Amino acid sequence: MPINSEVSTKINFRDAIAELALLLEDRLTTSKAIRDHHSQDESFHPPSAPDAVAFPNDIEEVSQIVKVCAKHMMPVIPFGTGTALEGGVNAIYGGLCIDMSAMNNIIRVNAQDMDCTVQAGVTRRELNEYLRDTGLFFPVDPGANASIGGMVATRASGTNAVRYGTMREAVLSLTVVTSDGSIVKTSTRARKSAAGYDLTRLFVGSEGTLGVVCEVTLKLHAIPESIAAAVCGFDSLQGAIDCVIETIQMGIPIARIELLDEAAIKTINDHSDLGYAHTPHLFLEFHGTDLSVKEQAATVQELAVELGGNDFQWALKTEERTKLWRARHDFAYAALAQRPGSKILSTDVCVPISRLTECILQTKQDIASTGMNMPIIGHVGDGNFHVALSVFPEDPQEMQLVDDFNKRLINRALQMEGTCTGEHGIGLGKKEYLVQELPQAINLMKLIKTALDPLNIMNPGKVL
Amino acid sequence: MPINSEVSTKINFRDAIAELALLLEDRLTTSKAIRDHHSQDESFHPPSAPDAVAFPNDIEEVSQIVKVCAKHMMPVIPFGTGTALEGGVNAIYGGLCIDMSAMNNIIRVNAQDMDCTVQAGVTRRELNEYLRDTGLFFPVDPGANASIGGMVATRASGTNAVRYGTMREAVLSLTVVTSDGSIVKTSTRARKSAAGYDLTRLFVGSEGTLGVVCEVTLKLHAIPESIAAAVCGFDSLQGAIDCVIETIQMGIPIARIELLDEAAIKTINDHSDLGYAHTPHLFLEFHGTDLSVKEQAATVQELAVELGGNDFQWALKTEERTKLWRARHDFAYAALAQRPGSKILSTDVCVPISRLTECILQTKQDIASTGMNMPIIGHVGDGNFHVALSVFPEDPQEMQLVDDFNKRLINRALQMEGTCTGEHGIGLGKKEYLVQELPQAINLMKLIKTALDPLNIMNPGKVL
Repeated sequence: MPINSEVSTKINFRDAIAELALLLEDRLTTSKAIRDHHSQDESFHPPSAPDAVAFPNDIEEVSQIVKVCAKHMMPVIPFGTGTALEGGVNAIYGGLCIDMSAMNNIIRVNAQDMDCTVQAGVTRRELNEYLRDTGLFFPVDPGANASIGGMVATRASGTNAVRYGTMREAVLSLTVVTSDGSIVKTSTRARKSAAGYDLTRLFVGSEGTLGVVCEVTLKLHAIPESIAAAVCGFDSLQGAIDCVIETIQMGIPIARIELLDEAAIKTINDHSDLGYAHTPHLFLEFHGTDLSVKEQAATVQELAVELGGNDFQWALKTEERTKLWRARHDFAYAALAQRPGSKILSTDVCVPISRLTECILQTKQDIASTGMNMPIIGHVGDGNFHVALSVFPEDPQEMQLVDDFNKRLINRALQMEGTCTGEHGIGLGKKEYLVQELPQAINLMKLIKTALDPLNIMNPGKVL
Repeated sequence: MPINSEVSTKINFRDAIAELALLLEDRLTTSKAIRDHHSQDESFHPPSAPDAVAFPNDIEEVSQIVKVCAKHMMPVIPFGTGTALEGGVNAIYGGLCIDMSAMNNIIRVNAQDMDCTVQAGVTRRELNEYLRDTGLFFPVDPGANASIGGMVATRASGTNAVRYGTMREAVLSLTVVTSDGSIVKTSTRARKSAAGYDLTRLFVGSEGTLGVVCEVTLKLHAIPESIAAAVCGFDSLQGAIDCVIETIQMGIPIARIELLDEAAIKTINDHSDLGYAHTPHLFLEFHGTDLSVKEQAATVQELAVELGGNDFQWALKTEERTKLWRARHDFAYAALAQRPGSKILSTDVCVPISRLTECILQTKQDIASTGMNMPIIGHVGDGNFHVALSVFPEDPQEMQLVDDFNKRLINRALQMEGTCTGEHGIGLGKKEYLVQELPQAINLMKLIKTALDPLNIMNPGKVL
């Protein structure tokens, strides 16, 4: 079986690097500092530096680079902003890291069609700043200011997914470079299509293992007439979760509905100088016409009160909203700040919403048994929540404890017909769980990987 | 290249059929009448009967059937209701047709999670009747009372897709039987997941060429508090289309917005005894709370008046709405009734909405030049429209004229960055256009087909 096998840093990549240097000149580097910078993402996975880092300017260059790598059997690891959480960019077999940051052109915005085409290195904030005057926005928001290409690679989602969907729904078409250097457009710009296999969705979430995502055509959305955000504390975790479940089941098109348990509230209070009570909270956002936002808000507020929620604290102005969501998004950094020198280990299960209360309450009991501080935050409208841990990877005892906890959590979620990863991807950290979750499907995934990357040079050792 | 090659009706399938008869007893037949019934869909493509037809009861039987077929290199053609439009079920190399109609159990409805799991032979109307008391419904509505498995296979959509999405969005998970008889679950029941390659989406739209879809887990939606349908005539086609485009661009969550040109209106008037004026019309439907439906309707009505639309004729009662949409759905049969003995040839292009007016107006000119009666109907909110033709396949002159027209229409759509098929699929009729539309992607599709079906027994000769 060619996967995970013969690729090794022991292979001498000198010839490949020499050829690439001719092609890219000073946009190819073997500098230790730059290689180290590309050796890991934000997670606990141990760093592995690539042998060289390339900074291509366009898709034709990526194609030429991959052709050189294929000739020399050199692994190819695409790199966006390095903000992922499962070690997807760590060059565990060495090879060439392709840093996409110079490919940051917004190629085209089709305001009338509400879509745009961007190079993969554009970040989501850059895109939204660019779009500001068009009345449109790109909703997918994983917190970090990730690159669009990276978000495609991990099938990212985040706080807005409950209403606007994930990258699975956001991408109309991709242009990718495959393992032999071919440039492949996966679809047209039509909103829907029944034309052949859905290659777009195959590449969304493939984590660089099937090809390099170079250009992305995205659906955009009209900025709603009215946006209102609110924070609501609850007497109990169960009350907060039940409020989420009922909101979803009533079909209310809520834009964001995020849970923070009391430990998470304490973490962001400390970091962002907020004064929320130390109880479970929901952070909410409503989008629509003035009338519809008022109606949605009134319905959810009524629900919340019935379930032990307090009054909504509204954030109506843009600055207030930004502050609220910044506090939520900075959660991971807040957790790290509590333990200087620590790294993020974030669990990522997602379960059918009918099992969410049970899953979170059992997990709370489990947390209590560990004696560690483990805050829970979650995109609970989708059934997805994180136990966000700041860990010291060099402490084997702590890592064992956390690993055992994560294993129990994933087993719990799988028994509830959920998944081990709602949005972070498999990367290095969840390969064994993917086999457990989809024991027959894994064989098809391997067949596809081998068919599209017979040399196993595309981000080898990840996902499968 | 193994695709489209050595499989032939000349191979003697006697041994396979004898083995299958032992397995299925009277649920395997070689009766000519039943084979003929399974030789074609509703389209103009010439019939090709399979050598035998199987009626399995469950997924284990499908697995055993496919294993026998694989052993004998016998093509496997899944069959739902035979209501497709591109010859996807025609057994052009003979083989075994697997009729899924006996697999019509609704396995489970998870009302709290708003999802359900059904066997592939359940039809969409059966499912919605079953769901009636749950407050939930399954929105995807291609007109025909197709089977859920068939809808998965063709990535079906229809009138509701503008709001609720297509089968791409509707399917949470599949259980399929692959070419070696393996039973593969593609995903869990979680609403979102980043766990490995998106096999679910790979099988949605694969038209039976990668495996047999046996069980389907579908997202359901809450039946809206308020539903209102209306019909609105327009002075000009341009006015009607512009009204659609502006509605979409304003972000109004309209549930249905269908265009019928004056020729289409004449066709349904004659068939369904309606009295609409012979002008272009929009058929519309609004879903939401009472308040939100009123607001949406008022906004669209205002738009329509500005663009040469008349007053809305409302259909508020369920019976009136049913009558209205039945007339729309029966369009194809109405067109056939005008030319007894004719067959359907429906074009299916889908373009970015900014090009829709141009595309339809150019097509109208083209229609005028042919001298034939060619009504236009369309799911115009998605940019998808059909020129619905009733043709006599045995008239070579007419077929040539229609084929040339279709070619010009598809070229026009592709030049506008659209697709040759929005929802009918590639089947037999659009293989050359798929190559034209996605010239590089086709190579990846072939690699995937060969990897997952190395013997080329799964619905051979379709799509690729």
